[in-house]
Amino acid sequence: MVDPRTSIIDERMKRIGKIVAVSSGKGGVGKSLFASVLALSLAKKGCKVGLFDLDFTSPSAHIILDVGDVRPEEEKGIIPPQVHGLQFMSIIYYSGDHVTPLRGADVSNSLIELLSVTTWKKLDYLVLDMPPGIGDVTLDLIRLIKNVRFLIITTSSQLAFQTVKKLTRLLGTLKIPVLGIVENMKMNHSKATRQQTRKLGLSFLGEIPYDAKIEEAIGNTNKLLETTFAKKVEQMTTRI
Amino acid sequence: MVDPRTSIIDERMKRIGKIVAVSSGKGGVGKSLFASVLALSLAKKGCKVGLFDLDFTSPSAHIILDVGDVRPEEEKGIIPPQVHGLQFMSIIYYSGDHVTPLRGADVSNSLIELLSVTTWKKLDYLVLDMPPGIGDVTLDLIRLIKNVRFLIITTSSQLAFQTVKKLTRLLGTLKIPVLGIVENMKMNHSKATRQQTRKLGLSFLGEIPYDAKIEEAIGNTNKLLETTFAKKVEQMTTRI
Repeated sequence: MVDPRTSIIDERMKRIGKIVAVSSGKGGVGKSLFASVLALSLAKKGCKVGLFDLDFTSPSAHIILDVGDVRPEEEKGIIPPQVHGLQFMSIIYYSGDHVTPLRGADVSNSLIELLSVTTWKKLDYLVLDMPPGIGDVTLDLIRLIKNVRFLIITTSSQLAFQTVKKLTRLLGTLKIPVLGIVENMKMNHSKATRQQTRKLGLSFLGEIPYDAKIEEAIGNTNKLLETTFAKKVEQMTTRI
Repeated sequence: MVDPRTSIIDERMKRIGKIVAVSSGKGGVGKSLFASVLALSLAKKGCKVGLFDLDFTSPSAHIILDVGDVRPEEEKGIIPPQVHGLQFMSIIYYSGDHVTPLRGADVSNSLIELLSVTTWKKLDYLVLDMPPGIGDVTLDLIRLIKNVRFLIITTSSQLAFQTVKKLTRLLGTLKIPVLGIVENMKMNHSKATRQQTRKLGLSFLGEIPYDAKIEEAIGNTNKLLETTFAKKVEQMTTRI
């Protein structure tokens, strides 16, 4: 049986230019921070940008951006609130910030619901903050959204890169385009991640040094955009 | 309908003393490293220890310990191989190290299968390396295994602690005991995590400073046990 909502999703997405899924093999590599700052940087350049937090495991874009108490509006669908120049949507508007121990099937259902009710205005870019790894959301998203391209964040850690290999192997098998890999929180001068990325036949989009100041910039978009982290992300926007 | 395998799990677990689920609100906080080094430290003290990697999102204990090409044996169930003095079992023996994009329901099924076939010898401790956050594995485990106690790893980051709050609220609601919280990768002198932990009514088990040398010790258990990280974990074993 076909869920009637899935056919609506195409309609909802049709005014969107590029869709970038910011993903990672494992958590804790700075994925949400990257997705949030990428969205801000693209908006700063004058693009129309949406940011969609789909990280059911630990939604945090609303904390990073300090979105305040804005809420989506209902009008033949759900209209994302405008936050710091972005159209912002998050699963927290669906689940609340409560304990939400969703089962896999419920996650799939919530994702389909969210995608089918959210009405984006015209966008040049929609940045998706994905859950880490390969779970139900990633599998559904690949199935439901056309033209999604993945951008993968990793750290210099070999444990992180092992999981990146798995993720990119899956994306390769499914013929989903990968924009490239970003090495975050870099604290050494090793070229290992760069070399291993090329070995996978993928683009290396650059490295971002570990930035101790980023923690205090969380919740303050002006401060965020002044960090070394943001400067590095801005340089990468030309390749996205 | 009751899955017949779930009644076998009690039987399989009956020779186990304490079961410690090493968990975290989000990924990338050093959970797998902590679980592996905790198991090694307890074994070093002379305890009989099992380590069970249940992190379906990114299994890595086999890389941290460099378990080599040992395999579980079949004998009226599956017997975990002996690895560096530990009885070691991992979902990689079930899934292989292939791309395993398991749906939530498949994850549940694999977990039940693994728990019902694995025959642990007498153990003082079974350390579980859990997936981060609150997903199908966590929900199933709470349902299937009695006497499990959670130990939660976090970093100093407020984003990490936000997710810890969610996890502990769920565990509290379900009346699952929490041994305490460990603050890992500490790079400052803030007392915030310690204070927030106490505010939640939980024990603060200690802090572990960021240890740049840990990366090169991965895959070498002797080196691992010589790190500052391991010394700190050893101090915590008395409270577990």
